Amino acid sequence: MKFKKVLSFVVVAAMALGIQSVAQSLSPSTTWHWNKGTIVVDTPARPAGQKSALGLTVEKLPVVRVAFVGLGMRGPGAVERFTYIPGVEIVALCDYVEARAEACQKYLRKAGLPPAQIFSGEKGYEEVCKLPNVDLVYVATDWDHHFPVAKCALENGKNTAIEVPSAMNLEQCWELIDLSEKTRKHCMILENCCYDWYEMNTLNMAQHGVFGEVLRAEGAYIHNLDDYWDDYWKNPDGSDPDQLGWRMKYNMENRGDVYATHGLGPVAQALDIHRGDRFTTLVAMDTKSAHGKEYVEKKTGRPCNNFRNGDNTTTLMRTENGKVVEIQHNVMNPQPYNRLYKLSGTRGYATKYPEEHYAIDANQLKATGHKPKFDNLTSHGFMPKAEQDALKAQYEHPILKKYGGLAKEVGGHGGMDFIMDSRLVYCLQNGLPLDMDVYDLAEWCCLAELGTLSMDNNCASVAFPDFTRGEWNVVKGFRHAFANADDEAEAERVAKDFTAKLKEKAAADNVWEKYDKAKAKAAEKAQKAAEKAAKKAAKQ
Amino acid sequence: MKFKKVLSFVVVAAMALGIQSVAQSLSPSTTWHWNKGTIVVDTPARPAGQKSALGLTVEKLPVVRVAFVGLGMRGPGAVERFTYIPGVEIVALCDYVEARAEACQKYLRKAGLPPAQIFSGEKGYEEVCKLPNVDLVYVATDWDHHFPVAKCALENGKNTAIEVPSAMNLEQCWELIDLSEKTRKHCMILENCCYDWYEMNTLNMAQHGVFGEVLRAEGAYIHNLDDYWDDYWKNPDGSDPDQLGWRMKYNMENRGDVYATHGLGPVAQALDIHRGDRFTTLVAMDTKSAHGKEYVEKKTGRPCNNFRNGDNTTTLMRTENGKVVEIQHNVMNPQPYNRLYKLSGTRGYATKYPEEHYAIDANQLKATGHKPKFDNLTSHGFMPKAEQDALKAQYEHPILKKYGGLAKEVGGHGGMDFIMDSRLVYCLQNGLPLDMDVYDLAEWCCLAELGTLSMDNNCASVAFPDFTRGEWNVVKGFRHAFANADDEAEAERVAKDFTAKLKEKAAADNVWEKYDKAKAKAAEKAQKAAEKAAKKAAKQ
Repeated sequence: MKFKKVLSFVVVAAMALGIQSVAQSLSPSTTWHWNKGTIVVDTPARPAGQKSALGLTVEKLPVVRVAFVGLGMRGPGAVERFTYIPGVEIVALCDYVEARAEACQKYLRKAGLPPAQIFSGEKGYEEVCKLPNVDLVYVATDWDHHFPVAKCALENGKNTAIEVPSAMNLEQCWELIDLSEKTRKHCMILENCCYDWYEMNTLNMAQHGVFGEVLRAEGAYIHNLDDYWDDYWKNPDGSDPDQLGWRMKYNMENRGDVYATHGLGPVAQALDIHRGDRFTTLVAMDTKSAHGKEYVEKKTGRPCNNFRNGDNTTTLMRTENGKVVEIQHNVMNPQPYNRLYKLSGTRGYATKYPEEHYAIDANQLKATGHKPKFDNLTSHGFMPKAEQDALKAQYEHPILKKYGGLAKEVGGHGGMDFIMDSRLVYCLQNGLPLDMDVYDLAEWCCLAELGTLSMDNNCASVAFPDFTRGEWNVVKGFRHAFANADDEAEAERVAKDFTAKLKEKAAADNVWEKYDKAKAKAAEKAQKAAEKAAKKAAKQ
Repeated sequence: MKFKKVLSFVVVAAMALGIQSVAQSLSPSTTWHWNKGTIVVDTPARPAGQKSALGLTVEKLPVVRVAFVGLGMRGPGAVERFTYIPGVEIVALCDYVEARAEACQKYLRKAGLPPAQIFSGEKGYEEVCKLPNVDLVYVATDWDHHFPVAKCALENGKNTAIEVPSAMNLEQCWELIDLSEKTRKHCMILENCCYDWYEMNTLNMAQHGVFGEVLRAEGAYIHNLDDYWDDYWKNPDGSDPDQLGWRMKYNMENRGDVYATHGLGPVAQALDIHRGDRFTTLVAMDTKSAHGKEYVEKKTGRPCNNFRNGDNTTTLMRTENGKVVEIQHNVMNPQPYNRLYKLSGTRGYATKYPEEHYAIDANQLKATGHKPKFDNLTSHGFMPKAEQDALKAQYEHPILKKYGGLAKEVGGHGGMDFIMDSRLVYCLQNGLPLDMDVYDLAEWCCLAELGTLSMDNNCASVAFPDFTRGEWNVVKGFRHAFANADDEAEAERVAKDFTAKLKEKAAADNVWEKYDKAKAKAAEKAQKAAEKAAKKAAKQ
């Protein structure tokens, strides 16, 4: 009963529904076949001459020279945060719209750092990726451009960090894996929710056995985006004639959980995915589209009968070791923001939303080294706040201890963005494996295509491809990498020294005065040219 | 690619795993076939001469003469509650163990009602079902006996109410449907959670459009039963040699959500299932068994490698109208009691656990007739308590208004059990359709077998049978039935009058004095007989 099946029929079906552009969560190169009730998605063979990028490290980068591409919504905050990290040189700022790139100079000016080079236009990122003095390309474009920019960066031998979702379909997942394996450069998914306080402390507890064996986890992106839809960039290239903005347009054209990683990332770490376990089976189920369809109809004044993304999408995944993960996506319906983040283990339970709680009984707490204040604690209720605070203090994640204080000052989603960026730079400066590798990226982003395959086939079961190509059980347990104390101190010293000198030099050279003069001169020149042209036009 | 498939291979597989008794969530008569990735479960044709039991009514029963079968855990409370309901005659008390049936007389004595007839032994229920003076058989046995007792009651032309789960597999679902359709007698599932306060008020809100169109719902039975496992009856017939108790044994032998109805019942009512919508597609996914396996190993001192029920089972269901329901079952892992009960609609959100909340914005509240105290209410947060209380007061369910006060006094899971019983008697006295019919019973109980089919086939998609056999869209919207005010008042008068006279007569006749004398005499006689036998034995 096996038969090969390319996705063409799905694309044809989508076209029959009147969808104009190609549904991007389905990639044309994915192949699969039925095995009884299961859609088995093929794992392409590893190209010759390539090897695994598990535990990949690059040579220590005492100073990380970074270029930012995409400075609309998420980019500017990233630029600002990097001005707080020692041992960083912000080399280039790039956006489709020049003024948006230019606007980010203000963060460098405020920090006393020298100005960065500005790049713009549809292909500005290509120039950026070719710059010889760049170690890291930080991609914060709209979803449509995450992959092309990242691909270009890796092809030019740059370490690459990509906002979420970093790959929109399996083809992009595999291309990024192949590029990272081939170039031996990092390709990191910028999943900031892995660095939120509750998630990090709870991960630390899980790694210390506080919940026993974690059997089931939930994550989600439940966030009614009604207040934001109109703020998403409207590509002027003609691909968004109804001015829906890229995000609503993407939701309209694509089924599946198109934004799974905020929910999935943190729980995948807690479950040691591709560090001793792997996702094997996925099923997805969505509601019909009600709110999305209504939005588009209101905006366009026309009926919308082809809105692909259901208001809510639920994905269930089973692992090789018999664990289950549930992920939800709902950006449409009214309800409080919710990433769920629940871990259910054989000895305890953790839940983040709407309120942070733990349920662990006194015996288990004692067995894992925590001395509860009350001996009668049961797991039939949540721990009292004082006890919970004591538990969190005991298991405060070392990364929070190091960066938590400054992160709260710098901000960025409550500080987690700063912790993420700091860890990225720390690992690069110390020549360590990054916290999230290209296989994490693929595993967390593949839900869109695998879920679409499931749902377009009546919620069929889907067998995961193995992005590690057989090596998911090589590493035993997910752990953040740390340098030894001496190396870490030395790297910090070098980094701080570099930044101090960079600022001193910028001040001594009056770089911003010069920058303003040059800008003014250029503006004056442009003004004169415009006047001249106007006069000439008036004479004719 | 269609091929018929009887479940035999699954049973064989189960046997290969070393499971001794037949896995009861899989019924031997279920037939199904693959349609691409979907397991299509067949709907057996309606036997000739039978017609739908949708909206079934029986002749008004001014006095409901009830017999209770199963007086271990749930039964005694039911007997006590019925002593508070006017127009009821408790005719018979039956349990496997005579003393347990006898013990329930205390409730009748306390209420001043006459004693009931006592029945016991393995087949005691057969005598009960044949009693000519019984209108309703109320079944509260262990799960293994729900069906045989109910079947016997219906075959003897009795209205039947069955504790949950009322049917353990599809065969039992269909048999109960056929019996109810054929005999024209009620077969009700005693799903008490449909009568809890939050659920009833929220249902009322949903029916008034407060949440817009409800698109997604969650329900669950998450209840760590560690404190109870040992209390479940251990059948002395040899079928439970390890003395696991019937519930742990059932979990060990059966996969699937074996206790779905507490979560599913209330949300199915909110989604108008078989009153304009129907479940079409199911997928289920479970974690491995960790806690169950551990329990059995500790109890028996032997390895347990065949524990079928995963610690957590998640079931997703899609409806004809594009809604999604998620149901969880977890009686193993430590965490607070949780039935989830969440409704997510196009205009609002309701969530019961761990705290009762609503999220609806001011505009929607105004549009549906509720005047919010604060104009700036958004659905990004939960309503303030005062506002929520006002909303609940406005939409207080009429059934709660009628029975809520007394229910709180009588108790039984906080009162919901009493409301359920009161409604059952009310509908019978007034000749109305019951709140939950035999199709509800089947739809809510079928998850065990359908989920097992899904999971035993790598979480394949399963197409539901149509228990209404084509009539799911005949009734438009679920509503509780009510008599008109005059009829209701008259029925109440008759009921109260009957009970008052019954009590008067019991008092006048000194029935309990006579009962005690008769019992004492019987005991004396038995004692003498025993002494005589002992003497005789001593002589020999």
